Amino acid sequence: MGKFEELKKAAYDANMQLPELGLVLFTFGNVSVADRDLQVFAIKPSGVPYKDLTPEQMVIVDFDANTIEGSLRPSSDTKTHAVLYKEWNSIGSIVHTHSTYATAWAQSLQDIPVYGTTHADHATVPVPCAPPMDDEMIKGDYEHETGYQIINCFKERNLSPGELEMILVGNHAPFTWGATAHKAVYNAAVLEEVAKMAFLTQTIYPAAAPLKDSLIRKHYERKHGPHSYYGQ
Amino acid sequence: MGKFEELKKAAYDANMQLPELGLVLFTFGNVSVADRDLQVFAIKPSGVPYKDLTPEQMVIVDFDANTIEGSLRPSSDTKTHAVLYKEWNSIGSIVHTHSTYATAWAQSLQDIPVYGTTHADHATVPVPCAPPMDDEMIKGDYEHETGYQIINCFKERNLSPGELEMILVGNHAPFTWGATAHKAVYNAAVLEEVAKMAFLTQTIYPAAAPLKDSLIRKHYERKHGPHSYYGQ
Amino acid sequence: MGKFEELKKAAYDANMQLPELGLVLFTFGNVSVADRDLQVFAIKPSGVPYKDLTPEQMVIVDFDANTIEGSLRPSSDTKTHAVLYKEWNSIGSIVHTHSTYATAWAQSLQDIPVYGTTHADHATVPVPCAPPMDDEMIKGDYEHETGYQIINCFKERNLSPGELEMILVGNHAPFTWGATAHKAVYNAAVLEEVAKMAFLTQTIYPAAAPLKDSLIRKHYERKHGPHSYYGQ
Amino acid sequence: MGKFEELKKAAYDANMQLPELGLVLFTFGNVSVADRDLQVFAIKPSGVPYKDLTPEQMVIVDFDANTIEGSLRPSSDTKTHAVLYKEWNSIGSIVHTHSTYATAWAQSLQDIPVYGTTHADHATVPVPCAPPMDDEMIKGDYEHETGYQIINCFKERNLSPGELEMILVGNHAPFTWGATAHKAVYNAAVLEEVAKMAFLTQTIYPAAAPLKDSLIRKHYERKHGPHSYYGQ
Repeated sequence: MGKFEELKKAAYDANMQLPELGLVLFTFGNVSVADRDLQVFAIKPSGVPYKDLTPEQMVIVDFDANTIEGSLRPSSDTKTHAVLYKEWNSIGSIVHTHSTYATAWAQSLQDIPVYGTTHADHATVPVPCAPPMDDEMIKGDYEHETGYQIINCFKERNLSPGELEMILVGNHAPFTWGATAHKAVYNAAVLEEVAKMAFLTQTIYPAAAPLKDSLIRKHYERKHGPHSYYGQ
Repeated sequence: MGKFEELKKAAYDANMQLPELGLVLFTFGNVSVADRDLQVFAIKPSGVPYKDLTPEQMVIVDFDANTIEGSLRPSSDTKTHAVLYKEWNSIGSIVHTHSTYATAWAQSLQDIPVYGTTHADHATVPVPCAPPMDDEMIKGDYEHETGYQIINCFKERNLSPGELEMILVGNHAPFTWGATAHKAVYNAAVLEEVAKMAFLTQTIYPAAAPLKDSLIRKHYERKHGPHSYYGQ
Repeated sequence: MGKFEELKKAAYDANMQLPELGLVLFTFGNVSVADRDLQVFAIKPSGVPYKDLTPEQMVIVDFDANTIEGSLRPSSDTKTHAVLYKEWNSIGSIVHTHSTYATAWAQSLQDIPVYGTTHADHATVPVPCAPPMDDEMIKGDYEHETGYQIINCFKERNLSPGELEMILVGNHAPFTWGATAHKAVYNAAVLEEVAKMAFLTQTIYPAAAPLKDSLIRKHYERKHGPHSYYGQ
Repeated sequence: MGKFEELKKAAYDANMQLPELGLVLFTFGNVSVADRDLQVFAIKPSGVPYKDLTPEQMVIVDFDANTIEGSLRPSSDTKTHAVLYKEWNSIGSIVHTHSTYATAWAQSLQDIPVYGTTHADHATVPVPCAPPMDDEMIKGDYEHETGYQIINCFKERNLSPGELEMILVGNHAPFTWGATAHKAVYNAAVLEEVAKMAFLTQTIYPAAAPLKDSLIRKHYERKHGPHSYYGQ
């Protein structure tokens, strides 16, 4: 058994959850899982439909986006994943999808407001929409720059990737992450649901206001604070 | 066979209906079922995914929210359930979900108007949206206070829990109840459907008017009145 | 084998198509099938969930709404069906649902405009929304009057039930019909799809205009005219 | 084995993907697959429900819409397919559906703007909505003229069918195509998803702007350009 076998299996399992959760059409998504000791991550190969995917096909890549093991080309979003792993030490898995509602928010270039406790149970702030890249970045190493587009947005807004585990890349689509593959995929599904609820809330009542701070704090802390007790 | 076994089984069965009816994502919901003679209720344990749930895991709790039996922590919404059972003698089961359309209405802080007979077959009044708690209540015993948020809203509007079996908790999500677990779960699904129809009605025609009183009365009475005969 | 056995089986089969086509929640719908020679129709019993339904439970009713055979109470909408069979000789089956999008249009009291050929393939006119009953009719024999609400709307608009096989009952929900049970159920599913498309069309472009007459005629005639050749 | 057997099987398989992908209700769609050497295409027979379809039923038609082999009538849209094969040498398969969101855009007579990279990964331009036919064309050979309605729209906009593989026929519904049946069906599903995302984007933020040119180019070229490397 190769030293990456377990990692590949973890990445495979996480990738297969995307179609189960209704988060991908065809190949519009990918999950990677990192091994911090080995300084690599396993990621979906490029263009392979989910129904044909096998654990062996996962590609092992280092944090500079060099392929370490695997006969297939890694996902075209691999450089974005690599940048995020390299810059953010705390994350162990990354998910990228074009899930319908979250992508529509990304296309609208709007942050998703904290309209309710479903959102606040997972994040105390709006889900940020990183502005589209400037033309220089686009002409450069595009997927690499997408990683910095995400990181820069977090810096400008003074957010940490441990506190908030999701972002919308403007005009593109969402990325989510977490300490584990399970958490990263969970976040992708939660983001899609929160995006749908926010769309409906605004359509029902265009003047809808965000949750007040005291309520945001309460919900987030009961799940994440030092005295957390949440779980439905 | 323990004296709570039947009650646990009833709570388990009712909880498992939520994913079947498409009313929950992950663990975003819970059902409890009360035994009025024993003065306890069985409720979903906290944070356990529906696919892993077993009847034995249900937690037995009294109406002051003390755990009577069970090795797992009860749902974080347990205190809300306890308050409702204690204050409202007529109810035998409570359902809490974050179902998408009902939650969007709760996030918009709007009551759901009686736009049609689907609504009137189940309630003669708009589904009320209880206003968000004041900050003192939030800082206090939050889930306990959520129970009173619901009870106070009913008092202020002069509603009885036997007449209307559903509410939206502002910025949060719906609660429904009933004499039996079957009825409480049924109400949760009906509320979600009524919420979706009301969203669509308003979007199709923003000036849509509520049903006239004579029609509301007729539909409600044919199902619930002394001469009820309804059933499609 | 009883003389109504075949008729009951036809009504049962047609009723079971409603949940398969996603047109009903719980018991919110019913199908009847008529035998013109015997001057009766078979209809769903009242309040029986679709999963528990059997062919034997179908109730045989005459065109004055008297139960001829069956131990269960017929659907609470039975009198509406009876009136339509009695007044309209050409129809052999009736479907009533609370399907989500068609019901939202009924709740908005708006006709569904002919926005495209999907509609025109089935009807040359908007799907009419019959205005809510006046209070006298509501206080009277309500389900019986619902039949006349439908018939009066067709008369006022100069429509024939052979030409157009669907209607929205204002503030309530749709009824469809056809020469056969297959056609009546087909119409219920088509109406729901047309209602969804019209909702989306208006939301995408509020100034959307109906199809021009020449195109309505063409599409309807290629499917229904003397030289019909349609079928995708 | 007849010389068209393989072609019929390919057309059958492609047709069966439409219900699997949720793109058709009843018989509202059809796929054809061409054999350029034999100068024919296989197409779905008219009016046969997908569940009853068999490979043998596929009808073989030449590029002038004459039936070459088959006992059933070919789809009523056959002449549209024939015109497109005859005029556009590069295409090997055509798909027509009334998929919900794409059809709603067609009914609104609006092009689908390039709101995000999901669109740009497949097309650098808005999905055009061909204007409704003039009355002379409608009275003439309608389905034949629908082919020219599509071709004329591409000419007027200076588009080539190799560059853009999808169109909305105004007031009607979408057509997509591709070198292979797989690609044509893939395009039909992508168009439906892009149409849904665009609807949501506009509803979330009515002032939403199209993607800037540099980003459109980048995404399209990484998938289709001479240095393409895309695949998630």
